[in-house]
Amino acid sequence: MSFTLKILGCSSATPTTKAHPSAQILNMEEKLFLIDCGEGTQVQLRKYKVRFSKIDHIFISHLHGDHFFGLIGLVSSFHTLNRGKDLHIYSPKGLKEIIITQLKITKTQLSYYIHFHELKGNEPILIHDDKKLTVTAIPLKHRIKTFGYLFEEKQKERKLNMDAVLNHEVEVCDYRGLKLGKDYTDNNGNVIDNSVFTSNPSAPLKYAYCSDTAYYPEITKWIKGVDLLYHESTFLDELKELAIKTGHSTVKDAVLIAKEAEAKNLLLGHFSARYPNREVFLEEAKLYFNNVEISEKGKDFIYNN
Amino acid sequence: MSFTLKILGCSSATPTTKAHPSAQILNMEEKLFLIDCGEGTQVQLRKYKVRFSKIDHIFISHLHGDHFFGLIGLVSSFHTLNRGKDLHIYSPKGLKEIIITQLKITKTQLSYYIHFHELKGNEPILIHDDKKLTVTAIPLKHRIKTFGYLFEEKQKERKLNMDAVLNHEVEVCDYRGLKLGKDYTDNNGNVIDNSVFTSNPSAPLKYAYCSDTAYYPEITKWIKGVDLLYHESTFLDELKELAIKTGHSTVKDAVLIAKEAEAKNLLLGHFSARYPNREVFLEEAKLYFNNVEISEKGKDFIYNN
Repeated sequence: MSFTLKILGCSSATPTTKAHPSAQILNMEEKLFLIDCGEGTQVQLRKYKVRFSKIDHIFISHLHGDHFFGLIGLVSSFHTLNRGKDLHIYSPKGLKEIIITQLKITKTQLSYYIHFHELKGNEPILIHDDKKLTVTAIPLKHRIKTFGYLFEEKQKERKLNMDAVLNHEVEVCDYRGLKLGKDYTDNNGNVIDNSVFTSNPSAPLKYAYCSDTAYYPEITKWIKGVDLLYHESTFLDELKELAIKTGHSTVKDAVLIAKEAEAKNLLLGHFSARYPNREVFLEEAKLYFNNVEISEKGKDFIYNN
Repeated sequence: MSFTLKILGCSSATPTTKAHPSAQILNMEEKLFLIDCGEGTQVQLRKYKVRFSKIDHIFISHLHGDHFFGLIGLVSSFHTLNRGKDLHIYSPKGLKEIIITQLKITKTQLSYYIHFHELKGNEPILIHDDKKLTVTAIPLKHRIKTFGYLFEEKQKERKLNMDAVLNHEVEVCDYRGLKLGKDYTDNNGNVIDNSVFTSNPSAPLKYAYCSDTAYYPEITKWIKGVDLLYHESTFLDELKELAIKTGHSTVKDAVLIAKEAEAKNLLLGHFSARYPNREVFLEEAKLYFNNVEISEKGKDFIYNN
């Protein structure tokens, strides 16, 4: 099992020619999920050759402009491209009014239907559940209502050992039972242990997106054991008071969350423009945590099991 | 007298890495006017080193996304940059609701005040009048309510010929009368013609922005004799039926307007993405009109008298 995270932007606040605000594409189980959508995201999608038509789900963390100002443009471009498929948009309350107001005033009747899923509350919410994965919204702690998102692959069926299956002349109609872990009873009534026919499948992978948020250890129990945690680290530790004041995290905060959550890997992002050299984030994080990387626009981060 | 027009974007419809939607900066009489503001305009402003703080007036032609989706980002960035000065935004009705809705929902209390000037009607409207220039909104013909904008320098005072002034020992308190064209009466009671002391000032310059619009000859009387006409030419003549259907102009339409308006220069823009080589617009226009150029992002067009 594997997933790929493509960073489209990982800068905080205003966009520049070099710094793009938050947006990323998660490719998990052959689905493309867009997470946050700062101004210029549609251009980044084109630049990195992401197929617009494969995006059916967009997750907006919160209603600060650097996380959603690109959405109305993308919604409009889907329409210009004559999209027919439904689009699902998840966000805290308010985004529907923002988008609908603009569509109404611009007299745009979209070629497709948008399902707005507006989230509230202080507990995790299962917001998507299909055959292969689930998505859960995770309350974060920021100046306004904010959700992170946890993407979890589902447990796969057990892998058939075809040599053993053929040796014991197992009927095809019994394959399913074996994949589900049942033992096998042969024509002579002998019960043969399932382990003869199958092996463990790869463990399902988990990805958690946590931005923007202050240090908020409450979330660690919800994202326990994730394979990758993207956690904002707007500032270095030297500005921890500014981080507290603005509802953001320092590198150290992000590392503490990763450790407490037993995250296998940590990816830092949402960097303040005051640090043109982002290696400083990596250097500070490496003091406390080994499996850490820094986001970089255009870069793919790939995780396998 | 002179003005400079800097093109930030001149493509129709959706932005790409190469094509930026409508936005331009007019520098006239030491003021910077932003005209239209498609998605990514603030990045273009930074790229071409335009000083955000010098922009006090923004003119939006109409409420199609490729002309205003960048405005909320720019408004927010002004706030982030702690702007104190008032900002004036001119547009057809609806933009105020779009911007206010987003500020309200994002819980943003701006550091500065926005004056929304929402325009209506089918006649030109004088919308700005200061010591040095005026701006007039010009109704265009598009699928939704759309205004072009006419920027006119005011007539300067006559130029003093200082040699003559000193020869005739004219008192300083009489300079003003001479500049306004009055004759001069010397100490002996002789009336000396004003032309002895002054010469004609440069003629004031005029710039008209007309986008988006179908072929609409009604406007030519309002923009008569402009030094520069920016007129949209979304399509070549081969697609004139599509132009009519979508409320846009062909190159030929733009040329006809320029000729009828006796424009001294014509600048084409708002090009359809179906023409990657924009020289075709110039080639077609040159068949009918000599003083024509095509817009190009980042390029300055300078006009003098």
